[in-house]
Amino acid sequence: MLKPLGARVLVQRLEAEEKSAGGIILPEAAQEAPREGKVVAVGPGELDENGKPMGVSVKKGDIVIYASYGGTEVKIDGEEYLIINEDDILAVRE
Amino acid sequence: MLKPLGARVLVQRLEAEEKSAGGIILPEAAQEAPREGKVVAVGPGELDENGKPMGVSVKKGDIVIYASYGGTEVKIDGEEYLIINEDDILAVRE
Amino acid sequence: MLKPLGARVLVQRLEAEEKSAGGIILPEAAQEAPREGKVVAVGPGELDENGKPMGVSVKKGDIVIYASYGGTEVKIDGEEYLIINEDDILAVRE
Amino acid sequence: MLKPLGARVLVQRLEAEEKSAGGIILPEAAQEAPREGKVVAVGPGELDENGKPMGVSVKKGDIVIYASYGGTEVKIDGEEYLIINEDDILAVRE
Amino acid sequence: MLKPLGARVLVQRLEAEEKSAGGIILPEAAQEAPREGKVVAVGPGELDENGKPMGVSVKKGDIVIYASYGGTEVKIDGEEYLIINEDDILAVRE
Amino acid sequence: MLKPLGARVLVQRLEAEEKSAGGIILPEAAQEAPREGKVVAVGPGELDENGKPMGVSVKKGDIVIYASYGGTEVKIDGEEYLIINEDDILAVRE
Amino acid sequence: MLKPLGARVLVQRLEAEEKSAGGIILPEAAQEAPREGKVVAVGPGELDENGKPMGVSVKKGDIVIYASYGGTEVKIDGEEYLIINEDDILAVRE
Repeated sequence: MLKPLGARVLVQRLEAEEKSAGGIILPEAAQEAPREGKVVAVGPGELDENGKPMGVSVKKGDIVIYASYGGTEVKIDGEEYLIINEDDILAVRE
Repeated sequence: MLKPLGARVLVQRLEAEEKSAGGIILPEAAQEAPREGKVVAVGPGELDENGKPMGVSVKKGDIVIYASYGGTEVKIDGEEYLIINEDDILAVRE
Repeated sequence: MLKPLGARVLVQRLEAEEKSAGGIILPEAAQEAPREGKVVAVGPGELDENGKPMGVSVKKGDIVIYASYGGTEVKIDGEEYLIINEDDILAVRE
Repeated sequence: MLKPLGARVLVQRLEAEEKSAGGIILPEAAQEAPREGKVVAVGPGELDENGKPMGVSVKKGDIVIYASYGGTEVKIDGEEYLIINEDDILAVRE
Repeated sequence: MLKPLGARVLVQRLEAEEKSAGGIILPEAAQEAPREGKVVAVGPGELDENGKPMGVSVKKGDIVIYASYGGTEVKIDGEEYLIINEDDILAVRE
Repeated sequence: MLKPLGARVLVQRLEAEEKSAGGIILPEAAQEAPREGKVVAVGPGELDENGKPMGVSVKKGDIVIYASYGGTEVKIDGEEYLIINEDDILAVRE
Repeated sequence: MLKPLGARVLVQRLEAEEKSAGGIILPEAAQEAPREGKVVAVGPGELDENGKPMGVSVKKGDIVIYASYGGTEVKIDGEEYLIINEDDILAVRE
């Protein structure tokens, strides 16, 4: 598996049927539309001024809404994932 | 429901009839015109230099004027919402 | 009424007859010409590093010269106002 | 009169005959040529991290060389003035 | 050999057969696709505000996923290497 | 004479015969070529976070190599000078 | 000779025969290819927040790999040198 560095997060995009359960629908067609996904792994976060990582604001298993631009796609054991910056995560499903 | 991250705010745009009550009219046609909406949920705010969130300057239920660019649309249970940055909120109706 | 957020200020542009009293004439025609207006409401100002608002350098009732770009127009009870950043206010009439 | 805000300075451009006295000639024709002027009023300066203004490096009456771009023209009682940023003042005549 | 400066890292790109072992497949064709490589040498890291280097978040021997743009190619004793910034390393294989 | 403000420096460009003495030849023709000059006056330098000027790294009389873009030409008593930023001075002749 | 200012470094580019000794070959043809050179003189480094120079990470005599853009060419006693920023030095040969 992959361990993200810095404030990066590894997410797996949710399929349509999974998303319908939560009642949250995102406009799929739009180019810059947000996406819904599950957090698979998180980085240690940015460093504070003493050089200690500050953590990130999501945790493994969270269902998140993230901006669809800027992430980097990787395929692990046949599954597609996305490495995104914490800043690109807009909200967490409660 | 969605919990915004960072200094983001979830707002629901007010319909025309709701807005007329407050006497505040915003130019609808203009491309970069401001919008009026109700705050539905708020994020914890930016982190200070010790890594603690500083809160945001609006709260759930506030009626706000926000810049109409830059937000991200999401649909939850059939209702349309917008995730915006706190910085895009210009003023609160008193 | 509206309460500006952050270092924003709500101003109402002065009409020509009002401005002539003070003897200050601003070139109306120029695209980026400054404008003269009265401060109607002020925000709490930017936050210092402890998260406390630092106030703004103008107060309600001040007659100010402000840059004519960048503000956001709103209409309240039939009156036109402008929400501008404190940084766009160049000077105060004494 | 006008009281500049922040690190802004109100200057009045010197006429040609006044400038010749000091022996400093600036290339008038050049588009981005510097100008010579007299300081009429100064702002309190930028705020330090405690929110206190730090003053500006020129005072009323100083004859200064300033960059000719970026300022804002205003006319007060028939006289033309320029509101410029302290950073656009290059030097003071000694 | 080369000792990278600052927060730079010297990596050697992994060949296809080496990568298949870990089960991680990256889209080779894409222009901005990430690459997989082995860390050969690391710099001391950025300086903190006291001027001391803070180290980097990877070490010699790590298998890393890095962004394929922005690095600088060098050839040492017939082997090709890449000098990249630590920020361009997205994740470490675990 | 002129007293530069901030981290600005007043320099006088050296003529060709003066430069040959030091054995340093700069490519004259190139558009962004460096120039050689003598420091005539220096500003107090940038302010530190307490608002005190930190000085500049050259002194009156220094022969310096400076980038040929970005400075502002002024003529004092018939002599041409250049007001440049300290950052545009690349090196000092020893 | 020249004493670089700030975090600048004076380097002399190595000829092809000198470089072959170390076994490091850089792609000469590429426009943004890195170059190999010897450090001839170094500046005092950037200032820390107390105004003290922090030194640079290379010393006189070091053989360095540097980015080929952004430097400034000077000729001293018939020899060609380059003044570059410390940040443009990618690595040191060990």
